[in-house]
Amino acid sequence: MEKNSHTLSRGAKCVRCRQQAEIHLPSHHANFCPDCFLVFFQRQVFRGLKKTPVHPSSPVMVAVSGGKDSLAVWQVLLDLGYCTKGLHLDLGLGDFSEESLERVADFAREKKLNWGSFSLSQEFGFSLREIDALLKGKTCASCGRLKRGLLNRITSRQGFQTLVTGHHLDDEAGRLLGNLLGNRQEHVRKQAPFLPSPHPKVPARIKPLYRVDVREIKAYNNINTIRAVQGNCPFTKGATSPHFKEALSLLEQRMPGLKRSFLYAYLKEKPESKPDAEYGSCDLCGEPAFGPLCSICSLKKRVLSKIHSKSIVSS
Amino acid sequence: MEKNSHTLSRGAKCVRCRQQAEIHLPSHHANFCPDCFLVFFQRQVFRGLKKTPVHPSSPVMVAVSGGKDSLAVWQVLLDLGYCTKGLHLDLGLGDFSEESLERVADFAREKKLNWGSFSLSQEFGFSLREIDALLKGKTCASCGRLKRGLLNRITSRQGFQTLVTGHHLDDEAGRLLGNLLGNRQEHVRKQAPFLPSPHPKVPARIKPLYRVDVREIKAYNNINTIRAVQGNCPFTKGATSPHFKEALSLLEQRMPGLKRSFLYAYLKEKPESKPDAEYGSCDLCGEPAFGPLCSICSLKKRVLSKIHSKSIVSS
Repeated sequence: MEKNSHTLSRGAKCVRCRQQAEIHLPSHHANFCPDCFLVFFQRQVFRGLKKTPVHPSSPVMVAVSGGKDSLAVWQVLLDLGYCTKGLHLDLGLGDFSEESLERVADFAREKKLNWGSFSLSQEFGFSLREIDALLKGKTCASCGRLKRGLLNRITSRQGFQTLVTGHHLDDEAGRLLGNLLGNRQEHVRKQAPFLPSPHPKVPARIKPLYRVDVREIKAYNNINTIRAVQGNCPFTKGATSPHFKEALSLLEQRMPGLKRSFLYAYLKEKPESKPDAEYGSCDLCGEPAFGPLCSICSLKKRVLSKIHSKSIVSS
Repeated sequence: MEKNSHTLSRGAKCVRCRQQAEIHLPSHHANFCPDCFLVFFQRQVFRGLKKTPVHPSSPVMVAVSGGKDSLAVWQVLLDLGYCTKGLHLDLGLGDFSEESLERVADFAREKKLNWGSFSLSQEFGFSLREIDALLKGKTCASCGRLKRGLLNRITSRQGFQTLVTGHHLDDEAGRLLGNLLGNRQEHVRKQAPFLPSPHPKVPARIKPLYRVDVREIKAYNNINTIRAVQGNCPFTKGATSPHFKEALSLLEQRMPGLKRSFLYAYLKEKPESKPDAEYGSCDLCGEPAFGPLCSICSLKKRVLSKIHSKSIVSS
């Protein structure tokens, strides 16, 4: 039988303090006790942040869903002394959304943090359920696009120049793999843990967790007793990204460290900082847009035209 | 439970003749009876060969190990009327090599085919076991390099301008994935099912099976009652390529057709036909070489220096 490299061997010592280890990181060939693991985790994030021009003193907006990744990134930014504000987007998905909001509220209350919640249906005019019912399928893609657009817009409206997201090593490596398998080279070139602001009204984006993986985030949250929302969004069915992550996990098991070396091999190259086209203004809302309409208004147009064609049929 | 897309549903009909199907190809959304599957298989290979300048009337050398892939490619070239000669390289690995040679001999005898066998240790001066014992580790890589060099050399010596190998979709997609995961872009750019001759003494290379996968090859051999050598070379332990193939198989199961669309997405781009550097001649053997020594002589030099240093230690 294959040796499970994810198991901590008995009597293993922490590589940092030589006390009893509790966490085994095969990709780093290291074992840690909980305290030293926190130092390791913070350092990983710090090393990533050093490569961005964002200084702890400049305020950053943190997109927080209430899931393990976004609460971890918020916590580690606090550990590192960053000035943060939490931004929650309520997707209006019943119990799942209510629990998400609760987890963010609890976390912020406990640590006395500044934050705000915005409703997707109020900001956009339609709920995710309505979008799903009208556009049928690819709701995950519509939601992603919508979240990206709204988070940018609200961040900028609130006077912040940087938006932080909880994307981690598995997210980034999985996305990269998906883009490579489809030979989408322009997406490959644009993927980076720091994306500078492409327009005065569009914030820069940073992904401080890109050097840590899901297991490490879970261990970090566990030690910090961070309570995150459980379960998945009901619309993730049919999404392809879990498959890419699954394939990478298999490779990581066979070749510890591969996931990390894969992502880093592509990060060495400088991402394209210039946008593919010149930004103009959206004909409907005046916000920055590549084409005649911004991504939000163009989605809204599709939703409205569906409603219109339905009302013609039913009348 | 997930539906297994690899299972043939009861009463499924052949997409070509509407008789009872026996072979299910999820990535092609098709079922076939054995006879129509052979037509399908030959057409896949024919479509691939059409993209090369090699005509059935020009003789091609087929590298045959006695394994399922090389016997399948030899058979399908015969089906398509190509003029072939088999080239077997005896690696001198005991029972495994003896059985390999027997399978090639049986196949050639039965079909009255022209072929020849050459011994790696005679051609190179050392057996694979000696290389393994002396150089320790990476024997798979040394063997691949040696086989490539010797097959080219013998093909050219025998007056052939084209060498055919049994590399298939899984080999090619796995290799591409490995190169992409390591961001080895020059290897990615050079990978192609047809590599034109880069030098008058180096044959062109074609991989006619690049459009069919292992399952399809097994079914083809089964219908043709081709007996191939079983088991793996004793030196494959530690090779990474099986892991990349395993990851792709997982993705193929989740998204049928992905393996094929992935490889084809990269084949669209024209491979680099010009060599990275100008060919010169090997200082030792005079064969085409990039550096002062050809790949074979440079390996031989390493082996000899190991023997030399050992004899100094033991004297």
